[in-house]
Amino acid sequence: MMTPDRIEFPTCPVTSFQHDRVMLAHGEGGRLMRKLLRERIAPAISCGNAAISTGIIENDAATFTVNDGDMAITTDSYVVSPLFFPGGDIGSLAVFGTINDLAVSGADPLWLTLGLILEEGLPFELLDRILLSIGTAAKRCGVSIVSGDTKVVPKGVLDKIFINTTGIGRVRDIGSLGSHRLHEGDAILVSGPIGHHGIAVLAAREQLGLNPAPRSDCAPLHESCRCLHNALGRDLHAMRDATRGGVSAVLHEWSEASSHTMKLRESLVPIAPNIRGACELLGLDPLYVANEGTFVAAVSRSAVTRAIEVLQNLDVSRHATIIGEVTKKQSAPVIVERLLGIWQPLDEPSGAPLPRIC
Amino acid sequence: MMTPDRIEFPTCPVTSFQHDRVMLAHGEGGRLMRKLLRERIAPAISCGNAAISTGIIENDAATFTVNDGDMAITTDSYVVSPLFFPGGDIGSLAVFGTINDLAVSGADPLWLTLGLILEEGLPFELLDRILLSIGTAAKRCGVSIVSGDTKVVPKGVLDKIFINTTGIGRVRDIGSLGSHRLHEGDAILVSGPIGHHGIAVLAAREQLGLNPAPRSDCAPLHESCRCLHNALGRDLHAMRDATRGGVSAVLHEWSEASSHTMKLRESLVPIAPNIRGACELLGLDPLYVANEGTFVAAVSRSAVTRAIEVLQNLDVSRHATIIGEVTKKQSAPVIVERLLGIWQPLDEPSGAPLPRIC
Repeated sequence: MMTPDRIEFPTCPVTSFQHDRVMLAHGEGGRLMRKLLRERIAPAISCGNAAISTGIIENDAATFTVNDGDMAITTDSYVVSPLFFPGGDIGSLAVFGTINDLAVSGADPLWLTLGLILEEGLPFELLDRILLSIGTAAKRCGVSIVSGDTKVVPKGVLDKIFINTTGIGRVRDIGSLGSHRLHEGDAILVSGPIGHHGIAVLAAREQLGLNPAPRSDCAPLHESCRCLHNALGRDLHAMRDATRGGVSAVLHEWSEASSHTMKLRESLVPIAPNIRGACELLGLDPLYVANEGTFVAAVSRSAVTRAIEVLQNLDVSRHATIIGEVTKKQSAPVIVERLLGIWQPLDEPSGAPLPRIC
Repeated sequence: MMTPDRIEFPTCPVTSFQHDRVMLAHGEGGRLMRKLLRERIAPAISCGNAAISTGIIENDAATFTVNDGDMAITTDSYVVSPLFFPGGDIGSLAVFGTINDLAVSGADPLWLTLGLILEEGLPFELLDRILLSIGTAAKRCGVSIVSGDTKVVPKGVLDKIFINTTGIGRVRDIGSLGSHRLHEGDAILVSGPIGHHGIAVLAAREQLGLNPAPRSDCAPLHESCRCLHNALGRDLHAMRDATRGGVSAVLHEWSEASSHTMKLRESLVPIAPNIRGACELLGLDPLYVANEGTFVAAVSRSAVTRAIEVLQNLDVSRHATIIGEVTKKQSAPVIVERLLGIWQPLDEPSGAPLPRIC
């Protein structure tokens, strides 16, 4: 039977009305939600495109026309803490991270969806900064945000804001990229110095006081991936952005999927002195630290020079370099020649979790 | 400078290893994450499709081939509490809710993506039940889950689990549906009795002890929407699932977008006695309560009989009925003839929020 004394009704929105922050009623499908969509979300992320703006406000499915062909789709949730860190924020990360998953799959990014989950009481000032960052990042990549959803949960149910983006792109040459195309003798490249994102977020979250503060490498990779793919054609075998688990996670996945051993030389891996120093202090191996604007590629040995040339010509990958090679299967999936000349197996990432890094 | 005493390192996963629940390391891109994907997530949601299973485990963008034409895309996050309620759970809701957004847009659902955000410590027993529900729901709708992402956040950062699904479908007849097609004289239908989902979730969350417990209407609408569309063609003008904000929110959106007034008769609105009773006790108007398996449609007056016949022929919409009509603009956007014969304006939902209803 009814036990009305146990019902906890939410605070009345009239008495708790606040002009400067998100309220539960902003997620309730009514007037306040439409106001939020119309006045804050749509203007920030639609970059003036009225059709997109309408699609987001009307909360319908968005429609788009496709031509025959192969499409790629990927989804990612972003829970990074803190929301803002040197070199990026949860908004730019949510756009670039998903763009990069398409980019390394050999797809040109076209559309994004945006799912926001907001904590009641989130200051509009914070939300606006994040939305602006999302809109700016999407514009920079030439993608449209075609559909969105906004939920508001009571204070304490989540920490401030989580973002989901789903990305759709057009595949340039289906089947041309992937771990199935790795060959013995392939060169392994990285597009830039590693470890920046993970260390930047950790340093910001734990207020490590490093001076200068490490900056995330958070950046879109679609242009460098496309240029590399176009220049190398089928000599480009696989690409992967080195996010959670870092370069080590990529190489372990490739090893398992291809039954080859990945061989690295630590002396070849580009690591900035401040990142190396921070890793030593924190007891972290930079090969395991997340990146958000750096990818690993495997290319035919004969195409290495061209690959490096193409990548170094672009700002985002100007420090691209060879770090190792694909070899026939050995006792360990990934082996690394350490700075002192000793070859060691590189363990697969499993422990030492760095939560909320992306 | 470094202040190492302030660094809070996460618990060592070796000492905190637990076989029965989600750990932070399950979200770290390494061995444990692949184990989680391979042993729990992929088997539950891929329904035996090896290609899908591989796509989900490899964490790449998934690829799919399209033919020329118009596609629809929609995204939604699900934060419902409690996770399980009579008639559904967060898993089936996350599938059906997104399918329904495609369905009412006149699209046949094809693919879903799945973004999971898990709280550290979530029992595997709960996760497995939710995954099974997702897989079963997707299979029922004939859609494939083509891409996924799993994040784990530290205990306390979110309440148990949030799910995002993005759905892609093929549009049958572009431009044929939408508020721009509403005409004076159109009949307004609902596909079934209203208010079940919101009351079921509220009763479960607040342990109201209603007997029998109200059941959510959580169900996929793609079949009834398609049959209605095929039968009526361009005599079907608009459809919308009546989720957050209920039937009232749909009618207010339609009124604003079309500059017509929506006119309802309360006596025509199908409401089950137990839902009416619960609403009266709780002081809620069922017209504002969320549904998850009920849609509102506007059809040409001449096509009403055919529309009702088609809908009543399908189990999910067997109680479909006319509730009102589209009229020329009057002083209020939505007016309702109450049971006592008095015409009243129906306010737009804005307050009385019912958070975490979907």
